[in-house]
Amino acid sequence: MSEINKNEVDIVIGALNADLTQFLNSWKPFFSGFHLIVVKDPELKQELNIPQGFDVDVYSKTDIDKVVGSSNSTMFSGYSCRYFGYLISKKKYIVSIDDDCVPAKDPKGFLVDAVSQHVNNLENPATPLFFNTLYDPYCEGADFVRGYPFSLRSGVPCAASCGLWLNLADLDAPTQALKTEQRNTSYVDAVMTVPLKAMLPISGINIAFNRELVGPALVPALRLAGEGKVRWETLEDVWCGMCLKHISDHLGYGVKTGLPYVWRNERGDAVESLRKKWEGMKLMEKSVPFFESLKLPETALKVEDCVIELAKAVKEQLGSEDPAFTQAADAMVKWIQLWNSVNSSG
Amino acid sequence: MSEINKNEVDIVIGALNADLTQFLNSWKPFFSGFHLIVVKDPELKQELNIPQGFDVDVYSKTDIDKVVGSSNSTMFSGYSCRYFGYLISKKKYIVSIDDDCVPAKDPKGFLVDAVSQHVNNLENPATPLFFNTLYDPYCEGADFVRGYPFSLRSGVPCAASCGLWLNLADLDAPTQALKTEQRNTSYVDAVMTVPLKAMLPISGINIAFNRELVGPALVPALRLAGEGKVRWETLEDVWCGMCLKHISDHLGYGVKTGLPYVWRNERGDAVESLRKKWEGMKLMEKSVPFFESLKLPETALKVEDCVIELAKAVKEQLGSEDPAFTQAADAMVKWIQLWNSVNSSG
Repeated sequence: MSEINKNEVDIVIGALNADLTQFLNSWKPFFSGFHLIVVKDPELKQELNIPQGFDVDVYSKTDIDKVVGSSNSTMFSGYSCRYFGYLISKKKYIVSIDDDCVPAKDPKGFLVDAVSQHVNNLENPATPLFFNTLYDPYCEGADFVRGYPFSLRSGVPCAASCGLWLNLADLDAPTQALKTEQRNTSYVDAVMTVPLKAMLPISGINIAFNRELVGPALVPALRLAGEGKVRWETLEDVWCGMCLKHISDHLGYGVKTGLPYVWRNERGDAVESLRKKWEGMKLMEKSVPFFESLKLPETALKVEDCVIELAKAVKEQLGSEDPAFTQAADAMVKWIQLWNSVNSSG
Repeated sequence: MSEINKNEVDIVIGALNADLTQFLNSWKPFFSGFHLIVVKDPELKQELNIPQGFDVDVYSKTDIDKVVGSSNSTMFSGYSCRYFGYLISKKKYIVSIDDDCVPAKDPKGFLVDAVSQHVNNLENPATPLFFNTLYDPYCEGADFVRGYPFSLRSGVPCAASCGLWLNLADLDAPTQALKTEQRNTSYVDAVMTVPLKAMLPISGINIAFNRELVGPALVPALRLAGEGKVRWETLEDVWCGMCLKHISDHLGYGVKTGLPYVWRNERGDAVESLRKKWEGMKLMEKSVPFFESLKLPETALKVEDCVIELAKAVKEQLGSEDPAFTQAADAMVKWIQLWNSVNSSG
């Protein structure tokens, strides 16, 4: 891997837990020297506990209110507090990891440097236009296989890097509740580009993106009525990921998935979650055909335009299906307003 | 993995080398109990050397001439001799491995049972309609990740399983000649479905397919003018793979890639190949936009119809680009005639 310019990266942490001591100390070898943006869930009452030795700026409800206005600050509650960090960052790359994850070990027993792997994924081209069976052709010792068109071998810019999870996988509420004992132990040593037009459920647990290329596409928009403070009760990141993938496809960028892994610890009671009806299931069934048939206008050349067009289509085609979609569309429009005001004033 | 019904599988070996002793003995633990079809390259002069202890039927030029007529037997020369085995098999599944490959070792040092892995891939559903970030959701300990639509979790039938290669990767002539020292050492422990509409260069080195579902789609069609007896000088399998993938997409089947690996030994002189102009490069540049824009008519419901329609489109759209395409289109039509005559008479 090439040397990383640490000044180009912000690590954004959404604090849903007050005590970040163990979390941050476990990441110290890899976060050291990077600038951290910690955004405190505005609904979290306790004071944050942040250990010494990090270059960190902390943002709480007061700061959020100041920047976006108190009427908009609910957009940034719960897991969505991360998006406030995306909004105010000035860096090229964002890396974001949930605060219940610690570094994973690779099969040789070495701790995985998730930050470097993410940035490396982003700095190398993506290959969404043709599938390379030997995975990321830009990795050392890898290449394009026979038959891969030479005209496509330079790839396209990589917009986002989706990492994975060992131990507790990212399952939905019903699956998590039914398979409480299931753990992911399979370390798959590969990075790949998700092909053009393929849809995938991007998870926000362990993700990085090129903020300069696609920053505004990471929208805090879809909120489930019964959403709690455990991942399996949410869908914000999956919705955001479908917007991000569709916009990346439209603009000619690629999305990678695979390495790096993080080790995900338990949080919350899955069986308790099962008592709630998981609304996400129904919303995904509506969302998939929508994104499948969605075609952004060719005039949408900027990410901001794409999000606005997407919001329009959501409202028109999904608005009558569920109020969560209308709310999502409105939030997307609001998000672009906020993005423009924050990112043009500075 | 579930128990395999060995009576449902034919292992098809194209013999480009006369002495199969080492090859077959290395595979003995995994080929044992299966029926083997060995097809001798009609251009190979020496007698085949086949060790004891296998349930094997051998087919040579005389047999090929008898079944397809001597005017058609050139379709089955070189690496394409395998297709004769596909034609005459009566089994549900075909597994085919090049005769310069031996069993690979997994990271724990165990020999990989490529046959069982292929059949297992074929017997489990594929998921081309939505990408699962945690790879094959039907593997033990795996599942669908949060956000994966429940309506798509039953998957679709799996048409083909593309295995990979350790040691000598499947590179094209120029890459192989330029990187003579490069070896693939990366064992990626994953199976995945290639998404709908994504194109990939399927390699014939280590492949399996459901003959009942898509048998006629595996067409011996594209032959390069300077084609020799080393893989990197050929493109027959890549072309066949693009037909297979497109037809599978059209009919609602999936194609998997990943495990099993085989260990691929050296054969031939890559630098010698570099002296030949690699025509494959040019043909792929023409083929990709063709397959990208190809839309088979909805009336094409049988694999045979799809191949005929595909051949028609090839002739119309690519015929003027290169005589190899016209020849391929003709071969595809001829192949379906042969398939129908062989498979309806028995």
